[in-house]
Amino acid sequence: MRYEELTIEGRNAVLEAYRSGKTIDKLFVLDGCKDGPVQTILREAKKQSSIVRFVSKERLDQMSATGHHQGVIAYAAAYEYAQVDDILKAAEEKGEPPFIFLLDGIEDPHNLGAIIRTANLAGAHGVIIPKNRAAGLTAVVARTSAGALNYTPVAKVTNLGATIDELKKKGLWFVCADMGGETMYRLNLTGPIGLVIGSEGEGVSRLVKEKCDMTAAIPMKGDIDSLNASVAAGVLAYEIVRQRLGGGVR
Amino acid sequence: MRYEELTIEGRNAVLEAYRSGKTIDKLFVLDGCKDGPVQTILREAKKQSSIVRFVSKERLDQMSATGHHQGVIAYAAAYEYAQVDDILKAAEEKGEPPFIFLLDGIEDPHNLGAIIRTANLAGAHGVIIPKNRAAGLTAVVARTSAGALNYTPVAKVTNLGATIDELKKKGLWFVCADMGGETMYRLNLTGPIGLVIGSEGEGVSRLVKEKCDMTAAIPMKGDIDSLNASVAAGVLAYEIVRQRLGGGVR
Repeated sequence: MRYEELTIEGRNAVLEAYRSGKTIDKLFVLDGCKDGPVQTILREAKKQSSIVRFVSKERLDQMSATGHHQGVIAYAAAYEYAQVDDILKAAEEKGEPPFIFLLDGIEDPHNLGAIIRTANLAGAHGVIIPKNRAAGLTAVVARTSAGALNYTPVAKVTNLGATIDELKKKGLWFVCADMGGETMYRLNLTGPIGLVIGSEGEGVSRLVKEKCDMTAAIPMKGDIDSLNASVAAGVLAYEIVRQRLGGGVR
Repeated sequence: MRYEELTIEGRNAVLEAYRSGKTIDKLFVLDGCKDGPVQTILREAKKQSSIVRFVSKERLDQMSATGHHQGVIAYAAAYEYAQVDDILKAAEEKGEPPFIFLLDGIEDPHNLGAIIRTANLAGAHGVIIPKNRAAGLTAVVARTSAGALNYTPVAKVTNLGATIDELKKKGLWFVCADMGGETMYRLNLTGPIGLVIGSEGEGVSRLVKEKCDMTAAIPMKGDIDSLNASVAAGVLAYEIVRQRLGGGVR
């Protein structure tokens, strides 16, 4: 695994990175630049669902380490992504029913890092994130995960709903976090389980929610709307831990 | 309550702010500046335990909105602090046994904001923070609290240990978070309670820990050391919520 966030500059280098299958989390392109090579890069970016930002020359110059960006700078993942099968294998090797976090669009890298940290300590076997509209494994995520990225595999999938369908065939149950659900203490959260956490602003998307077997609510006594996403993930994950340790359901 | 972070510039204005009893979280002084008025300001800063930073003229010029800082810029709290008694009164008015968060040196304003947000939703009556070596109620804290600062009183005290002693006389029990403690599910966390959360790096300080009646550990299955401070606060707070809702102790 590599630790640093990789910056790739220049048209050939960026195109080469795409074609070699490297995961590009974010692509910066000079605003207004539309010639052939840039179009080719943008097509690759679309295929891989990289986040694309059109920015000014000043911004690119500032970001550039080499001074030869030619209007294109890409940020590659700081860490290698795992496959979903790696996560299932990790559970099998430990002789435990799978426990997987699925993050439906966490955009803040600090939240992503904190959630991977929680996944590690709660004994989850891995984390699944979507390609689109979500933070990737950047250097900030690595740092805020406090080392958990070295141990807990993170897989990136194109379609979270399709992944849930596949995992259901392998016996997993899915619970998503939503205020409208049943109080978490009343749900049976033992056995092979996928915990679905929604994005900071929107919560779990409708299509993903419909695929879930259960909807769990954290009891809320206060005046405001919702917990921070990484805190909510922690509270739900630890209700799963409590039940797995033999704590009862009411 | 005021929302914006207040910047106070100039010697008279800063001295006046101190003398009027305003809470100054942070004081910036021109490095090497040691004349009479500056010494007077530094004495006031010491009395109030403001964080003091000696910085270059360039830095001060950059921070200055008026261009007339005269070598001194102060950051005042964005929010008014409450008194510890206000927190007890809030519990009394709701007819509930007090539930208070005590934060022993949380330095990251994002963590502080997230914890105040959790305190609100877990039904805690207030949050107590120390004057020294801790984040104050800045604009970042207000934002990350997602509005909770408008509802949940936050008190700032000089000595957390002394405050614990006073609150014990009023019938509160104290539980602190520490890996070396008893698994949280085995502790009786009902009744009037103070939940003590330690700093990001150091955990709960020895003097504060010695004053606590119980030490609660979150079960850890993973490879790394500890949860993010705001996640740990959330997990422990919700174990208290669960027990208060009638969930059993094992």
